[in-house]
Amino acid sequence: MKKFINNPEEVVDEMLEGLLLAHSDKIKSVGEEDNHSLVKIDAPSNGKVAIVTGGGSGHLPLFLGYVGNGMLDGVAVGDIFASPSVQQILDVTKKVDGGKGVLYLYGNYGGDVMNFDMAAEMSELEDIDVDSVIGTDDVASMPKGSEDNRRGVAGLFYLYKIAAAKAETGADLKQVKEVAEKVNSRVRTIGVAVSPCTIPSVGKPNFEIEEGSMEVGMGIHGEPGMYSEKIASADEVADLLTNLILKDIDINENDSVSILVNGLGSTPLEELYIVYRKVHKNLSGKNINIYKSYVGEYATSMEMGGLSISILKLDKELKDILDTPFDTPFHKQF
Amino acid sequence: MKKFINNPEEVVDEMLEGLLLAHSDKIKSVGEEDNHSLVKIDAPSNGKVAIVTGGGSGHLPLFLGYVGNGMLDGVAVGDIFASPSVQQILDVTKKVDGGKGVLYLYGNYGGDVMNFDMAAEMSELEDIDVDSVIGTDDVASMPKGSEDNRRGVAGLFYLYKIAAAKAETGADLKQVKEVAEKVNSRVRTIGVAVSPCTIPSVGKPNFEIEEGSMEVGMGIHGEPGMYSEKIASADEVADLLTNLILKDIDINENDSVSILVNGLGSTPLEELYIVYRKVHKNLSGKNINIYKSYVGEYATSMEMGGLSISILKLDKELKDILDTPFDTPFHKQF
Repeated sequence: MKKFINNPEEVVDEMLEGLLLAHSDKIKSVGEEDNHSLVKIDAPSNGKVAIVTGGGSGHLPLFLGYVGNGMLDGVAVGDIFASPSVQQILDVTKKVDGGKGVLYLYGNYGGDVMNFDMAAEMSELEDIDVDSVIGTDDVASMPKGSEDNRRGVAGLFYLYKIAAAKAETGADLKQVKEVAEKVNSRVRTIGVAVSPCTIPSVGKPNFEIEEGSMEVGMGIHGEPGMYSEKIASADEVADLLTNLILKDIDINENDSVSILVNGLGSTPLEELYIVYRKVHKNLSGKNINIYKSYVGEYATSMEMGGLSISILKLDKELKDILDTPFDTPFHKQF
Repeated sequence: MKKFINNPEEVVDEMLEGLLLAHSDKIKSVGEEDNHSLVKIDAPSNGKVAIVTGGGSGHLPLFLGYVGNGMLDGVAVGDIFASPSVQQILDVTKKVDGGKGVLYLYGNYGGDVMNFDMAAEMSELEDIDVDSVIGTDDVASMPKGSEDNRRGVAGLFYLYKIAAAKAETGADLKQVKEVAEKVNSRVRTIGVAVSPCTIPSVGKPNFEIEEGSMEVGMGIHGEPGMYSEKIASADEVADLLTNLILKDIDINENDSVSILVNGLGSTPLEELYIVYRKVHKNLSGKNINIYKSYVGEYATSMEMGGLSISILKLDKELKDILDTPFDTPFHKQF
């Protein structure tokens, strides 16, 4: 393995230890048993709804990189590609609740749903008001008509950003939930992978991508894609992914969108911009307004090679909220 | 090639086109012949010294990702691993000069030095006051005693950040140059690579790293390292690199430092934090104060696998300047 690790079983604990040392001004550990439960340094933020996420490790900056000012209040961190435990979620929930309730906001994976649901029940027993929105932006994971069963991937960034900004306005739990649901209904993502990643404790890739091929629609844990084909040019990939998204969601002339081109791990930023360029041109060519764009690593799969494109259909409310600043250990916006 | 590109000869032009589309609120193209000359959207910034950098492409966010508020004023962008031209540098220089002069701040590579020097001469003919500071932070590239001949790598980030913040205070060209030189004399970097990168127009890696080996001290263009050995654990790598730096620069008990753990391309953030953790502990264990840390991709080599560690020895002045905000298309600081 070409990995900078020590004991493969301790990858997540040691990563979190490093993260807490590097960002002790922004986040703190509040777990009763380990350092997998992290919250903003000034938690609880009184007077606002708190937002909690969580999921498996190996996707930085997802999930824990989105805790910070103008963003999320806390995160429960699982092992590589594994859900956090109910206790870890509960530890976070108790520390972030400032009396206005807690919104769970996370991606649609079986283990996560089960554990967040159980943590929600246990929180209610402690008189903490909890509600949930589950991100389902991955077009490739289920056909149109089954949107609710899709997986959550890079588009989660938009759910976080906008729900968090709404919470900052003093909105109540119902209102924050509503805007998160609205974003989820308006964002679509589709990815393409060209090389796999290796779970440290396994020591070899748990799936293969044939040399010279790309997996269209592969998930961020290597879930099989829609199909495999010869690696295409950047422009062809941009066209393909844009078209798959536009077939799935109604975006018309004069609509406004935000585009996120996300690197899955080892694909250089240079290539992401080449692809962004063509997505931008495709949409501009249809007289769709590109309001704001993000290019970089927002949801990765360790060293997987590939990228995803997310498109969020905006309205006046979402535009305004998208513009507000946020400050996390990873991405920031002035 | 597992790359998302079109014509390999157009990689840089198309990357820049994408970048300008994505960040049209922050940067603009001012070249007379191409889009390789970029400046801040509000250039020239009157009343302050302007800072210009440049170098080959393939290192994002280096170099052009450091243009922005509280950071650099302009950048001349070369082809992959190639210097920008004299004309490209000159185009930038003319657009950023606000009457207080221009500092060229870039890494020590033959072609860059030659072209920046020539552009400086031509600028003087146009009555623009130009001076230069050349980054030489790469410990591995030349032995102690020959510091001035070392290459410039990720430590350039600190030169940019601090010189730019100094310029914002209204300092004159001599003062901005002095603080950049001070940072350069106090920062050291050393890297380790585990997998190569491919120049698109070549189509295969222009150097090899034996499977299971790491190249200690390899440069960001694949320049040979000090030696090659079996890939070590994260802690061993952290120990090795920390010790090589501490042998080269006098850092003692109660001194304060900033640490930058930089990913070279395909190495996941998770691993960078595991390494950061051990570097932090090593220095803390010697009662060295860790004032501020940066972990992420600051100077890459496309999809090269590996990382570098930079340590900057701080004093009161540098600490204060390091804290000021900056906003670029890539990294930001509140």
